[in-house]
Amino acid sequence: MDFNELSATPAVVESFARTPDPRLREILGSLTRHLHDFVRDIEPTMEEWEAAIGFLTRTGHASTDTRQEFILLSDVLGVSMLVETINQRKSAGEGATDSTVLGPFHMVDSPEREFGDAIDLIGSGEPCVVTGRVVSVDGTPLPGAMVDVWQADDQGFYDVQQPGEQPQGNGRGLFETDGEGRFRFRTVVPAHYPIPTDGPVGGLLNATDRHPYRPAHIHFIAAAEGHQPVTTHVFVQDSPYLESDAVFAVKKSLVQEFTEVDDPARAAGYGVANPFRLANFDIVLQRS
Amino acid sequence: MDFNELSATPAVVESFARTPDPRLREILGSLTRHLHDFVRDIEPTMEEWEAAIGFLTRTGHASTDTRQEFILLSDVLGVSMLVETINQRKSAGEGATDSTVLGPFHMVDSPEREFGDAIDLIGSGEPCVVTGRVVSVDGTPLPGAMVDVWQADDQGFYDVQQPGEQPQGNGRGLFETDGEGRFRFRTVVPAHYPIPTDGPVGGLLNATDRHPYRPAHIHFIAAAEGHQPVTTHVFVQDSPYLESDAVFAVKKSLVQEFTEVDDPARAAGYGVANPFRLANFDIVLQRS
Repeated sequence: MDFNELSATPAVVESFARTPDPRLREILGSLTRHLHDFVRDIEPTMEEWEAAIGFLTRTGHASTDTRQEFILLSDVLGVSMLVETINQRKSAGEGATDSTVLGPFHMVDSPEREFGDAIDLIGSGEPCVVTGRVVSVDGTPLPGAMVDVWQADDQGFYDVQQPGEQPQGNGRGLFETDGEGRFRFRTVVPAHYPIPTDGPVGGLLNATDRHPYRPAHIHFIAAAEGHQPVTTHVFVQDSPYLESDAVFAVKKSLVQEFTEVDDPARAAGYGVANPFRLANFDIVLQRS
Repeated sequence: MDFNELSATPAVVESFARTPDPRLREILGSLTRHLHDFVRDIEPTMEEWEAAIGFLTRTGHASTDTRQEFILLSDVLGVSMLVETINQRKSAGEGATDSTVLGPFHMVDSPEREFGDAIDLIGSGEPCVVTGRVVSVDGTPLPGAMVDVWQADDQGFYDVQQPGEQPQGNGRGLFETDGEGRFRFRTVVPAHYPIPTDGPVGGLLNATDRHPYRPAHIHFIAAAEGHQPVTTHVFVQDSPYLESDAVFAVKKSLVQEFTEVDDPARAAGYGVANPFRLANFDIVLQRS
């Protein structure tokens, strides 16, 4: 009945042998082997094991309906990006838009909005228009595609982080592409921002002398019938931290110019103040 | 700035390179490598990644001042026992008492009690006397050693699991050994019991067709000046589940006979009803 440092692993793997779901059995067997390898590698003291239990517990307690500290932990350890990259490899098609991390702030439904609507409900910050098309890999426009967008405001905060200060749904919108696969919305240029630093993950970054900043970006999830949905960002080309994103999510193909436009007629056409910034982001979906 | 499935790992390890504490840097580098290996091994879908985030979050939420679901998770994955075994190897001395897992129920201070006191405050269940000595590896008795004990009642529940039904401190006691290194207490024979099954870890056992039972045992932490403390159990020899402990914690050397004694004079001497059960558990500590 005794087990030793090596026999422990097959004993635990064997305990999962009767798992009815073969995929769950595979995952738990792999988890056991890798977790035990990690423990054998670092040989934690009891105090270090207790510290790990405490860290995980605090991470759970910091997670609420509007905050997801475990996603943040997955993000800063590069796990979210690795999972995304693996899934994109599986579904990748020639020329399909790169995916990147979901992030911890997609926790509420985005309000449905119409073509050209503003997602910014405050009005401070630099006015901005984002345009784009959703197309299939062969270039066919995809009318009726759904484009879910969310972003931080010009101060670097999402609505769910400031429930008293920002109106609910600020910086969020769910759009349907028009007959030519186009979407368009008005907003403010998002700011680069620190991921939340007041929880256990912030403590981890602080203890490891890592900065908490993410380069400025707008989140997208685009989905269309008969196609693989994509979860991605568009990054603002002149933002700081493009080379050291705290969550490792930057891909070159997702960095776009937010061009300065000084043209009162165009501004009036879009319904924004002049001057403004204009970004285009076409999203190419792989067939499913 | 893009990283791929392999370059992700050195990029994240490098992000921890400025960690001032070298041990923390070592742990996080190893964690990153093993966690990424696990992800590359199973190639989780986004839905599986979300399920993992949800499981960890629920495990955090199930942990309170009197319940520790992450310790329970560590226990059922064999991690607690592996960490214990590694630490015992490091501090092992010839003939020192084997350690085993702390378990999730050592969350409150045990009340100080005197030699021979009862830790059972209810009075149902089979009466039992536990005796023993704390000695150094060379056999020298250790007077003034502290012996912290805690156990489930005859129904298989700890006091912290039944705050309304069991008096606080039931089944717990902190004893100081006498001039000859001896300790003694009255109790009831503990029952084998299921670990808590109403949380995420119970869900995991259920989904994997694993039983949740632990063989009957009494927890001990023994500590004496100049010696390594030991966290261990004494297991009841005739208990079921000695061969399939849900948390992998049984060691042969820790299984003791709980002898049936039918002797009114001895029962009176101990202050228990006749007949009763008698167990002896000597604890041998390694010098520090």
